[in-house]
Amino acid sequence: MKVLLSFSVIPMGVGVSVSEYVAECERVLAESGLKYQLHANGTNVEGEWDAAFAAIRRCHERVHAMGAERISTVIYAGTRTDKDQTLEQKVASVEAKLG
Amino acid sequence: MKVLLSFSVIPMGVGVSVSEYVAECERVLAESGLKYQLHANGTNVEGEWDAAFAAIRRCHERVHAMGAERISTVIYAGTRTDKDQTLEQKVASVEAKLG
Amino acid sequence: MKVLLSFSVIPMGVGVSVSEYVAECERVLAESGLKYQLHANGTNVEGEWDAAFAAIRRCHERVHAMGAERISTVIYAGTRTDKDQTLEQKVASVEAKLG
Amino acid sequence: MKVLLSFSVIPMGVGVSVSEYVAECERVLAESGLKYQLHANGTNVEGEWDAAFAAIRRCHERVHAMGAERISTVIYAGTRTDKDQTLEQKVASVEAKLG
Repeated sequence: MKVLLSFSVIPMGVGVSVSEYVAECERVLAESGLKYQLHANGTNVEGEWDAAFAAIRRCHERVHAMGAERISTVIYAGTRTDKDQTLEQKVASVEAKLG
Repeated sequence: MKVLLSFSVIPMGVGVSVSEYVAECERVLAESGLKYQLHANGTNVEGEWDAAFAAIRRCHERVHAMGAERISTVIYAGTRTDKDQTLEQKVASVEAKLG
Repeated sequence: MKVLLSFSVIPMGVGVSVSEYVAECERVLAESGLKYQLHANGTNVEGEWDAAFAAIRRCHERVHAMGAERISTVIYAGTRTDKDQTLEQKVASVEAKLG
Repeated sequence: MKVLLSFSVIPMGVGVSVSEYVAECERVLAESGLKYQLHANGTNVEGEWDAAFAAIRRCHERVHAMGAERISTVIYAGTRTDKDQTLEQKVASVEAKLG
């Protein structure tokens, strides 16, 4: 089952600058072979459900290992059976409506 | 790695009344052995990361099988290494501060 | 326009125990006159859109005033025009399907 | 109070293709004067709290007017008092760590 998702990792108790932790999650995604796109408030991921959620788990493990004792993550995930769709197609579909 | 999470499943294209689909996800959770608590805007789950996310995947599979061709799900998940914590303890911790 | 929502406030940079901040948001809600229900991973709110989001804003202001320099909040909100619905009815609707 | 947020609007009961509704929300944002960036799973917004949430409300109103009787929306919002930050700076901050 393929999933398109956006997730945002929030390390707690390590100060207010958390880009180094987010960067570590980008490295996890790079290693995963999943398609991903960093955006201003999270990262979009496209791939198989199990691989995508395994990457988010690995991100938690790595961020804990970096010293963050608590992590909250928001995930917005979608699956569909009517057609295959890519991250790029989702954006293009909206932009086409905007002319 | 233990996780506490709340998730909300949104079946799309099947009308505006979706409680039967949410109920199916509650059945998935009952079968999973995970601890879970239905609330007004989602379901809280407590358990091992892999089991919890496998249950959400199974929920998607079942809801697709019921006829929903598209599903969006919001997940808010937390892990911590400083201490073990239960769903009940999270509520009690806030209520204690409210006296 | 009425809204039913769940929101979760995540104060950053103030350690991993954040129940005092969540409790402050419960006080904001108590003062607001909105209907609300604390759950393990957030708080459900029922009321007029503007009042509900004003309360979440006030929560951010108060938590900043308590010393948290950064706050992330997750909100899952729903509106509907087909019928009026309460927080209790949403739970009852699912439970009815579970028999 | 300035906010950076990502929001995703999910019209329910209007089929599985919802790009026309998302496009309408982009039009609302264009009219609002807020800074915004469409991404694959939502839209990032930067601006004053009240203006940003008023735009999301207006989006709900318009999507209801288009015929969607039920709408769910996920919002991930952040405020900070330590410094001003833009959407572009959030991305740049992570990319800088990735070298």
